[in-house]
Amino acid sequence: MNIAIAQSGGPTCAINASLAGAYYYASECGEIDRIYGSFNGIEGILKGELTDLSTRIHGESDLDLLIHTPSAALGSCRHKLAEYSDNHSDYDKIKECFYKYGIKMFFYIGGNDSMDTVNKLSKYFSASNIEIKVIGIPKTIDNDLCGTDHSPGFGSAAKYVCATVQEISRDSRVYAIPSVTVVEVMGRHAGWLTASCCCLRANKETAPHLIYLPETPFCTDKFIEDVKLAIQKYTTVIVAVSEGVKNADGKSVAGSFTSGKKDAFGHAYLSGVGKCLEELITEKIGCKVRSVELNVMQRCSSHIASATDLAESEMIGAAAVGAGLAGKTGCVMTYLRENKETYSVKIGSVPACEVANHEKLFPKEWINEDGNGVLDEAIGYFLPLIQGEVMTKMRNGMPWHFELRN
Amino acid sequence: MNIAIAQSGGPTCAINASLAGAYYYASECGEIDRIYGSFNGIEGILKGELTDLSTRIHGESDLDLLIHTPSAALGSCRHKLAEYSDNHSDYDKIKECFYKYGIKMFFYIGGNDSMDTVNKLSKYFSASNIEIKVIGIPKTIDNDLCGTDHSPGFGSAAKYVCATVQEISRDSRVYAIPSVTVVEVMGRHAGWLTASCCCLRANKETAPHLIYLPETPFCTDKFIEDVKLAIQKYTTVIVAVSEGVKNADGKSVAGSFTSGKKDAFGHAYLSGVGKCLEELITEKIGCKVRSVELNVMQRCSSHIASATDLAESEMIGAAAVGAGLAGKTGCVMTYLRENKETYSVKIGSVPACEVANHEKLFPKEWINEDGNGVLDEAIGYFLPLIQGEVMTKMRNGMPWHFELRN
Repeated sequence: MNIAIAQSGGPTCAINASLAGAYYYASECGEIDRIYGSFNGIEGILKGELTDLSTRIHGESDLDLLIHTPSAALGSCRHKLAEYSDNHSDYDKIKECFYKYGIKMFFYIGGNDSMDTVNKLSKYFSASNIEIKVIGIPKTIDNDLCGTDHSPGFGSAAKYVCATVQEISRDSRVYAIPSVTVVEVMGRHAGWLTASCCCLRANKETAPHLIYLPETPFCTDKFIEDVKLAIQKYTTVIVAVSEGVKNADGKSVAGSFTSGKKDAFGHAYLSGVGKCLEELITEKIGCKVRSVELNVMQRCSSHIASATDLAESEMIGAAAVGAGLAGKTGCVMTYLRENKETYSVKIGSVPACEVANHEKLFPKEWINEDGNGVLDEAIGYFLPLIQGEVMTKMRNGMPWHFELRN
Repeated sequence: MNIAIAQSGGPTCAINASLAGAYYYASECGEIDRIYGSFNGIEGILKGELTDLSTRIHGESDLDLLIHTPSAALGSCRHKLAEYSDNHSDYDKIKECFYKYGIKMFFYIGGNDSMDTVNKLSKYFSASNIEIKVIGIPKTIDNDLCGTDHSPGFGSAAKYVCATVQEISRDSRVYAIPSVTVVEVMGRHAGWLTASCCCLRANKETAPHLIYLPETPFCTDKFIEDVKLAIQKYTTVIVAVSEGVKNADGKSVAGSFTSGKKDAFGHAYLSGVGKCLEELITEKIGCKVRSVELNVMQRCSSHIASATDLAESEMIGAAAVGAGLAGKTGCVMTYLRENKETYSVKIGSVPACEVANHEKLFPKEWINEDGNGVLDEAIGYFLPLIQGEVMTKMRNGMPWHFELRN
């Protein structure tokens, strides 16, 4: 029996750990002949091209490098399958490719869009009495997947955000003058990653002094009041804000600031919310202010990945293969937090339709009444996920990354 | 005999290592009674307030935390001393403070502006027959200090930039479409830090495919041609650009793009050069493009500091105290690269007037003819500076930082 694995959606630090976990389990279990990879997610399969991964991954040292390599080693895509009833050409191509390579199980590592593919494909195969199992392995730095305690990749992104906000806080305090630093964190709809920097309180840090999430309507007047009070109290203020914060009318804060603004070529200018709030503070308060966008570093800084996240991501990849061998299909692997006191997780699964295209937002009950901070209850949720340091192999003083496609 | 130490200018990951080195040497040498610190550089001295550092630093475990803490633990300032002939009130206050605390040697850790203070103060004390020695300990992530092979703090910033550009490069290659990522690196006048990412070639990386430094006039038409060619060759293109690149007329590229552009409040909008080039590529090429500003992370990410840089920075701090005890004054400590084959440095010193207010630019002979890349010769210069991993002490999954001012 042969299997295929692919990666999809935005890259994370842990998506390759799940690939490595699935690959290792599949190669060691004794029930699988060939492990194929598809480059650029479902697109490789649609082209009818798979690659025997054993020709690219040689031994455990390669696997170890792969685990510590950020981004998707197999490449990614943003391809959404049409409904079968609307257009079945993609389904035909996928079936053809899987027949050609003798694929009996397909593992798709991705976010909620990718789980839509898992859902649709598995339903198609079942309805057509085709004996091919499809299993989703979750990943996202947004932590917005339903049915799982947290998502592979999130812990590493949160660890980067926490460590970096702490370092930025140290940096921002060197001058003895009032100042504000606005740190823009990824998260268009869900504020998990931004909220995670409440972990700094475990280190007795006061920063970030204000936290704004997409789950709470943002009001610029209230924001300026919040910042003024924080300056009075702390002098040097750190604000953490999700890229997707929205006004009460549901419009993005960044969009409402930049609407009508043109770039150097007369095009509508899209500035991040951090830069917008920087301008707002300059205008309304006039103190020293800087905005910092954590940008792609928050999803690719594998040199400071969470060891817990990478170990769990490897485990969930392996468990997916185990679930496939046990006869499961149309499901997404999940984490269940077993014990809140001494953290541990168990791997489970839920039907893909419960994950596909759904979003799990940051709980309203963990946001303070003022909508500018996160309650201590959240710290206990986040803290275990960022624990543990990885031993990144270095080469010439820089991380040693694995290249699957060379 | 008592001594005073202060920190000045922009923070780095290594400025506290120099403080720790000076403190440790001074406390162990048997010739110094009290080691005072001045908060916020020369400003603390002007206020007449010094702090006995032995009341804040307890043992080697504190020193070890201090070494791995980013930014300036004593705080910083941007205070420029007037010429004595123009206004001597600062000089009087400094003298008074030093008399009050019995200071016989003053060590100032800072960049070229701070070395101006070292120069002026030492000349004033000498001319006034006051027996107080003043010695500069260099630091800057810009690496633009004259008289030294390289600057404390630079190696750590370069290691961050190299590791991060490599991770960004991995991140940018997941989709099978042409794309450009513009990485904006600090450096207003000198391109050392941007140029340092040529080290990636030692890891057989092709990124960054284009490098633009302030030392070469920037031409937007040529830039677009360069990017088009790079897309043809590499599909996924990484551009590294110094924040201070200038057009042939000497005007900043960022400034020339944003001139006339207004922010949401009608103020002149100041965008970074990365964002400007992102817009330019969108307009002229139209492919997927993203800009990433490494921002303060390049000077404060001590979790990925260069072990070589921190060890040398500690050593140069200690050597400064040794030089003071040996009778030196009005000088800045320097690194001399002893052996180009097997890297090692010796500590020396040069007169402060040779460092103060001067800038050492990136050598023109290491820039390629097209002005869009760095020659291999530069790799041998940079590579030793980014070697070695630090063992950052972690607490709750985040770096453990030392607070000198609590």
